[in-house]
Amino acid sequence: MTGHGDENVVTAAFLVIGDEILSGRTKDKNIGFVADYLTALGIDLKEARIVPDEKPEIIAAVNALRAKYDYVFTSGGIGPTHDDITAESIADAFDVALNLDPRAVAIMEPHYAPGQFTDARKRMARIPDGADLIENKVSKAPGFRIGNVHVMAGVPSIMQAMMDAVAPTLKTGSKMLSETVPADMPESRIAERLASIQEAHPRTLIGSYPQSNAGKFTTQIVIRSRDEAILKAASEDVARAVAELSA
Amino acid sequence: MTGHGDENVVTAAFLVIGDEILSGRTKDKNIGFVADYLTALGIDLKEARIVPDEKPEIIAAVNALRAKYDYVFTSGGIGPTHDDITAESIADAFDVALNLDPRAVAIMEPHYAPGQFTDARKRMARIPDGADLIENKVSKAPGFRIGNVHVMAGVPSIMQAMMDAVAPTLKTGSKMLSETVPADMPESRIAERLASIQEAHPRTLIGSYPQSNAGKFTTQIVIRSRDEAILKAASEDVARAVAELSA
Repeated sequence: MTGHGDENVVTAAFLVIGDEILSGRTKDKNIGFVADYLTALGIDLKEARIVPDEKPEIIAAVNALRAKYDYVFTSGGIGPTHDDITAESIADAFDVALNLDPRAVAIMEPHYAPGQFTDARKRMARIPDGADLIENKVSKAPGFRIGNVHVMAGVPSIMQAMMDAVAPTLKTGSKMLSETVPADMPESRIAERLASIQEAHPRTLIGSYPQSNAGKFTTQIVIRSRDEAILKAASEDVARAVAELSA
Repeated sequence: MTGHGDENVVTAAFLVIGDEILSGRTKDKNIGFVADYLTALGIDLKEARIVPDEKPEIIAAVNALRAKYDYVFTSGGIGPTHDDITAESIADAFDVALNLDPRAVAIMEPHYAPGQFTDARKRMARIPDGADLIENKVSKAPGFRIGNVHVMAGVPSIMQAMMDAVAPTLKTGSKMLSETVPADMPESRIAERLASIQEAHPRTLIGSYPQSNAGKFTTQIVIRSRDEAILKAASEDVARAVAELSA
């Protein structure tokens, strides 16, 4: 573990593209997956956004996020139908052309019966100039990486396979480690002790998460740090406070 | 139903505030709920964001979203612990003071045993100047509305109760109606037909959502419109296309 000033932090944002999530028709399953996945790799997910299938919205979000974080990951909008406009929006965001990509054609064409690589399917082989392909082991049609932006499918099984393909190419930081201390009390009872412990351990992030079950309030206290020894010391302080307040 | 130019559209954004969602520790359950809820009311959810418990991030997101949409709803960060910084961030975003609010004190104090309305609990009674309270039937500590921003708890049961308290105060637009046509085929097979149908029915939004079950690809086609007759006509065209391609 390196010292405080040297802590190696890599940041990311996740952009979900799709009207169906915002209308409530489809419940997003990708944000939670990506959050877990990046945390395990040692990349800090710092922001997530959901935007509709509207070109100006996609462009504005991609440009804001890629300027601010080390990596951007997107899901959704790279299928064969008219409402899939992610590839053209990303090309516009980077101000590059979007053409049928020979590498993508070479992957996709053999996957279909002769004559079945239709214009709609060819839409999925359009890749912005200068992008690398992201392999899709599930249904062939690739995602792509351009600059620090990784463009992936919205279907969870495909998105997850694409994350596996991307992961080895990513630089990662010191992992954020965490400990959870459960407290059988409402968080307001332990709030003042937690504030002191947080102050005493500036290199930790101490979060307090209330839960309500059948009208009874309990609390999960999560201590996070990139330094194992500091994490241990702060977690012991929290456990001691919980024990004292439970007595 | 009014004509095209008069369509009455009310827009909203939802802002989730919390490190625990971005770390993957907690899986968000509020976005899907709010999406369904607003759609049913006749309010279009146009964007959702998740930001960490960091004041500059909360302020930037709230100010961007409140300028762009009719309504903003937030969840998270209004509890009694040191990591709950939503109220002070919102006060800063609106450039108003944050003080102990007599209305909030009057609601909360009787809820606790004498002497138990501690400083930590009083944190939850700090409300930005000029805000209205949002009733919390579950655990008393209120949310608040300032300008077009509605600040609610992160615990789903409390957030949902607060949405019920807020709903009667909201202006609503023409409801977006929808029909779903299932297609037992990969979406690439119907893509060209859908593009034509979309073009023929400009007052609809036709979305195509692929699903993968055990390696078999099927498609859900969702037709949306604020006009019932137009929705019916476009849905019939889609159903006819599906039937023809299935034959």
